[in-house]
Amino acid sequence: MVDNIDNTTVDFRTVRRSVQRWTREGKKEELSDCLVREFSVTIYLNEQEIVTLLCTPEYLEDLAVGFLVFEGMLRSKEELESVIADYDQGQIWVRSRASDYIAEKTVKKRYLAAGGGKGTSFYSLIDVQNCNPINAMLRIAPEQVLAGMKELQARSELFQTTGGVHSALLASKEEVILYREDIGRHNAVDKILGHCFRQGLAPGELILFTSGRLSFEMLLKVAKFGIPILVSRSAPTNLAVELAERLGVTLVGFTRGSGFNVYCHSERIAIAK
Amino acid sequence: MVDNIDNTTVDFRTVRRSVQRWTREGKKEELSDCLVREFSVTIYLNEQEIVTLLCTPEYLEDLAVGFLVFEGMLRSKEELESVIADYDQGQIWVRSRASDYIAEKTVKKRYLAAGGGKGTSFYSLIDVQNCNPINAMLRIAPEQVLAGMKELQARSELFQTTGGVHSALLASKEEVILYREDIGRHNAVDKILGHCFRQGLAPGELILFTSGRLSFEMLLKVAKFGIPILVSRSAPTNLAVELAERLGVTLVGFTRGSGFNVYCHSERIAIAK
Repeated sequence: MVDNIDNTTVDFRTVRRSVQRWTREGKKEELSDCLVREFSVTIYLNEQEIVTLLCTPEYLEDLAVGFLVFEGMLRSKEELESVIADYDQGQIWVRSRASDYIAEKTVKKRYLAAGGGKGTSFYSLIDVQNCNPINAMLRIAPEQVLAGMKELQARSELFQTTGGVHSALLASKEEVILYREDIGRHNAVDKILGHCFRQGLAPGELILFTSGRLSFEMLLKVAKFGIPILVSRSAPTNLAVELAERLGVTLVGFTRGSGFNVYCHSERIAIAK
Repeated sequence: MVDNIDNTTVDFRTVRRSVQRWTREGKKEELSDCLVREFSVTIYLNEQEIVTLLCTPEYLEDLAVGFLVFEGMLRSKEELESVIADYDQGQIWVRSRASDYIAEKTVKKRYLAAGGGKGTSFYSLIDVQNCNPINAMLRIAPEQVLAGMKELQARSELFQTTGGVHSALLASKEEVILYREDIGRHNAVDKILGHCFRQGLAPGELILFTSGRLSFEMLLKVAKFGIPILVSRSAPTNLAVELAERLGVTLVGFTRGSGFNVYCHSERIAIAK
């Protein structure tokens, strides 16, 4: 994380800064460190201010759409009229064709501070009741679980530089579709889900890999989008497992080189015959 | 994380559940896994519902107080009349002697989704402007930085069992005062800061150690409480460093066995003479 380059911005996602490095032996020296950039961005929907997020400043259009879809403020691709991100001002302007509905949702929103990682969330249990169980027939081999996680780690360039981000990777059975990194675990996933929504990708064929822990809210987010398999390098909580079971999501945790744990709906993990 | 114990609750912080373990070689077996429990708790202030948090179900009184202090809804120990946690219903009832002020704050709150880790937050830049720079004269030796982090890791029992929590440790120059673990990075810190507030500990003599990444919001939280030294095992963001510099907090990151990085206000780290 530390080297001797000048104290200037070398990448819009990072900032260089001098740092005092102390070793165990009590020696200290001035070095230049590469810090991950934390960028404040405000999402507007039909000119109405919705939320301010702290994030990594890239793919802001996808971030805004992913966020608004999860919050129930965008319901279909047809509703989404336009999305314009101003990277200088830190603003994302989204236009929807369903303005009345949005105003009502915004006023009614209840806040649950459940963002494990930067991000989200207005949420209520109604979201769970309105979420249809996933019955996609997708099947993958155990080797694909391990290969996807290996790919995610190989791509995590920003993490390797700064140590300060989470990563997420979207794949089909055949190929890697998208990779995103963000200071927020939820933002990385929102950027992926926003992309899916804007491109109209069929979720039933998709697998999402994430570096982060699997909380209730992360599970709800993925289930709402209809993705049938969620794979993490980290641990799930009990609520995440309960919700995955109920909503038909195959939940895989502790995916490391040596193997992985399947917490529910293991029928989708099968050795090829 | 996996062994062969029955599928029952063994600790109020964890839940046992059967899991299918796959190895790299394609073998699978059913095992019992210990999952971290994600508990939903709602904070009420003078009967008014403030927020619902997902957390590890212990020290809920401290959690509520820490949260409300950071949100500016509790300003002094004298204002705090009582706090009662109902662990069965997941409710924390706080009574304050300053009710008018609270109602106003709640209505005015703006939401910034910046919770890196479960938790928080209603926040605005006004918080930064209202926050006084810390000029506490506390000095610690580099060995104390390393020793505190070592202690934090040695105590992280729940992490060792479940892999799903963050930890925080409060120390003075002389001793460890408090250790907390929570599924949320912010909750662990809120529980510590809530304890400080309720006990009336003088913040200028305290050092906070955390396992989690240092975001803008984490820095603001610690600075608002007046703690002069913040030490993390992980990376800070650029905004966290900028805010620490401005508010007089000594920010230490990447604290591992081999050494650590001091990002600003390094005058508080000094070799004993």
